[in-house]
Amino acid sequence: MSSFSHLDSQGKAHMVGVGHKPDQKRVAEAIGTLQVKPETIRLLKKNALPKGDLLTVAQIAGIQAAKKTADLIPLCHPLPLHKIDLKFKVGPKSIEIWAMAETTGKTGVEMEALTAVSVAALTLFDMCKAVDKTMKITQIRVIKKSKHERPK
Amino acid sequence: MSSFSHLDSQGKAHMVGVGHKPDQKRVAEAIGTLQVKPETIRLLKKNALPKGDLLTVAQIAGIQAAKKTADLIPLCHPLPLHKIDLKFKVGPKSIEIWAMAETTGKTGVEMEALTAVSVAALTLFDMCKAVDKTMKITQIRVIKKSKHERPK
Amino acid sequence: MSSFSHLDSQGKAHMVGVGHKPDQKRVAEAIGTLQVKPETIRLLKKNALPKGDLLTVAQIAGIQAAKKTADLIPLCHPLPLHKIDLKFKVGPKSIEIWAMAETTGKTGVEMEALTAVSVAALTLFDMCKAVDKTMKITQIRVIKKSKHERPK
Amino acid sequence: MSSFSHLDSQGKAHMVGVGHKPDQKRVAEAIGTLQVKPETIRLLKKNALPKGDLLTVAQIAGIQAAKKTADLIPLCHPLPLHKIDLKFKVGPKSIEIWAMAETTGKTGVEMEALTAVSVAALTLFDMCKAVDKTMKITQIRVIKKSKHERPK
Amino acid sequence: MSSFSHLDSQGKAHMVGVGHKPDQKRVAEAIGTLQVKPETIRLLKKNALPKGDLLTVAQIAGIQAAKKTADLIPLCHPLPLHKIDLKFKVGPKSIEIWAMAETTGKTGVEMEALTAVSVAALTLFDMCKAVDKTMKITQIRVIKKSKHERPK
Amino acid sequence: MSSFSHLDSQGKAHMVGVGHKPDQKRVAEAIGTLQVKPETIRLLKKNALPKGDLLTVAQIAGIQAAKKTADLIPLCHPLPLHKIDLKFKVGPKSIEIWAMAETTGKTGVEMEALTAVSVAALTLFDMCKAVDKTMKITQIRVIKKSKHERPK
Repeated sequence: MSSFSHLDSQGKAHMVGVGHKPDQKRVAEAIGTLQVKPETIRLLKKNALPKGDLLTVAQIAGIQAAKKTADLIPLCHPLPLHKIDLKFKVGPKSIEIWAMAETTGKTGVEMEALTAVSVAALTLFDMCKAVDKTMKITQIRVIKKSKHERPK
Repeated sequence: MSSFSHLDSQGKAHMVGVGHKPDQKRVAEAIGTLQVKPETIRLLKKNALPKGDLLTVAQIAGIQAAKKTADLIPLCHPLPLHKIDLKFKVGPKSIEIWAMAETTGKTGVEMEALTAVSVAALTLFDMCKAVDKTMKITQIRVIKKSKHERPK
Repeated sequence: MSSFSHLDSQGKAHMVGVGHKPDQKRVAEAIGTLQVKPETIRLLKKNALPKGDLLTVAQIAGIQAAKKTADLIPLCHPLPLHKIDLKFKVGPKSIEIWAMAETTGKTGVEMEALTAVSVAALTLFDMCKAVDKTMKITQIRVIKKSKHERPK
Repeated sequence: MSSFSHLDSQGKAHMVGVGHKPDQKRVAEAIGTLQVKPETIRLLKKNALPKGDLLTVAQIAGIQAAKKTADLIPLCHPLPLHKIDLKFKVGPKSIEIWAMAETTGKTGVEMEALTAVSVAALTLFDMCKAVDKTMKITQIRVIKKSKHERPK
Repeated sequence: MSSFSHLDSQGKAHMVGVGHKPDQKRVAEAIGTLQVKPETIRLLKKNALPKGDLLTVAQIAGIQAAKKTADLIPLCHPLPLHKIDLKFKVGPKSIEIWAMAETTGKTGVEMEALTAVSVAALTLFDMCKAVDKTMKITQIRVIKKSKHERPK
Repeated sequence: MSSFSHLDSQGKAHMVGVGHKPDQKRVAEAIGTLQVKPETIRLLKKNALPKGDLLTVAQIAGIQAAKKTADLIPLCHPLPLHKIDLKFKVGPKSIEIWAMAETTGKTGVEMEALTAVSVAALTLFDMCKAVDKTMKITQIRVIKKSKHERPK
């Protein structure tokens, strides 16, 4: 039977103890989408895509945010990330954001991947908000999660 | 004609200068939704809603994140927030998050409200992820933004 | 003969090298007390205890602060906490705060437990200061500290 | 009638809105004590007092912590401190810590002064813990708080 | 007669009180240089300049660091920056970094400009260190500092 | 053939994956110099050297900054430092800063040592800027870097 790992039977929150778990290689991928007006994409393509700074600034913000995950999400455990990767796909009326986080540790890294996507999306939103008042950040979710023994 | 305030005509990013702008009372509201399985809401209602800690932990995470907005989003200006408020509406298969940010300053606070919503959603996601692998954070957007002269 | 690990014979401060120490499971517990007026406890019981947010907010603040210990205390080593726990006991004129920190690492975690207690106490103080001008935070101390080999 | 500014009548926490308050010069002072064994003071006087680094490290930690108050205490408003001061009084079996914080702003700064005292005490504790296992941090309280109109 | 504002006559450090100073527009500019091998510049020009991400990553790191100045430098006052700007000049064996910081406040912003230059230089160093083991960060200094009354 | 580990062949930045690397003891040393006027050194010797707080404040700032390296430099991996050491050498017209960082981990720690030197230099600059407008931070570089197997 499933139960909330962070909540006890009275609904009180607590941080899960992970000291007994093995150190394993853990990888997670998440994606999300910034929905914009087609006109915004047209303007971006004229000024800031593919060679401009727009996506680089969002990528750096996403990497830095992934490192801050345990500072942002109260019941997350701090862990040393071994890799964070972000990629962007520009469509006719959206920018899709993909992020991957990897560690060798005792807990999964899906929150790190989700945090990278979320903050990269907020950063794109910030840079485009002067030209588009109708943007939405949407469909943020985990698409892959795995763990396996560390190589000897 | 609209243009990207954070990007020049070559697509290079820069921080907008706001020193010449007047100090004004500025308020912004944002919302977003965590989509979950109906079964998750049923489990939450049994254990953690309305009296448990779930929403309080998300609210505190959202308030703390709003204060960190300029640390998360590279081209945002730091500003002293005078109020941050979050509210939650639990539906049959979602939790809707509303946030409001207020300051007296030279720039708007929609990024602060959006950051509060995003991190509160991530925090709910973290607390529910043991029972629901299909959640999505979605429809994050600004719903209101205003500025007006400071009262004398 | 005992000596200050963080100070040399001229009183100069330095960070202790811990690279040669084994990784061990380390646990520490600390407690402390917020002394308040009996009237404050009565008001809290009417409004905010046991179901309100007061203790949850303090608990979250304590957990988040424990993760920041090495950022707050200059000569502390950063380490990845595996568990942080806080509990509160409401007496007729006090709130006692207990915290536990656990890691597998090279140094003890009593400073993490003490930091959790201290910041939880400050957070309670902040939430009660409008009704009680006489509060004191007192008797913060380590009550238990242990280390043992990691299980294979 | 007094009431908790940070809690509503159902005990739900919220951040107080301060946008309507005037900017005023605000000062607060707090003190607290680290209780140690007389032998610890004797050792400190031989090695680290009055010329060594012990008190300077604690002072710097206190100043830095005061600047982080709103990051540590969830419902505190961020504000730009104009002065933070710490002083130490070494007694036969204690070190007393005094801190002062000053700003021109919309909210009081007693939490900043208390945070400075608390983190300075934790820092002293950390530096002395190798020689004294019985220390206590105690009697942390506000001793003065004032506000007045900004000079024209 | 000149004297150290942050040190008293016994050499004890303290934070300067600035509450009595007027709010003024304050601007500072700083520069510094990363010295590299000519071969490094050649490689950069082939791969990463002028269109690649190298300078953008350093620029973002410099902007983010300027916002953290008071967290990095113990006796600095926190202040809300209104603009931070960085520019880079690539020479035959060096990259020169220029930064500007602006605020309306009670203290100068040369430390913010210097911090932006320093961290941008460290970031360039980090990205080039795999190909060049002989780099130096050098000649970091203030080149301009001004203050003037806020416009009415 | 050498290549930029943080940049791909199109000049796009990315964080290097280090999950496959062995945990090794890694040490790095860096130095740098604050150039000042001879008169500044004379004034420092009268007031603040060798017994005053000047160098202690810079040392603490350097230690704290080393712990924040991954927060300052976007593509750096977070890692738990086991030791950070700083030393200062006061010459007739300069203060030389030496820093050492040590960890057991998957990546080198030269950026941590360089960050410690840079922020210690900025801190000295801040404390001396009231008496000397001509200071320069210069010659920051790595002087030693090593890695070896962890002792069993």
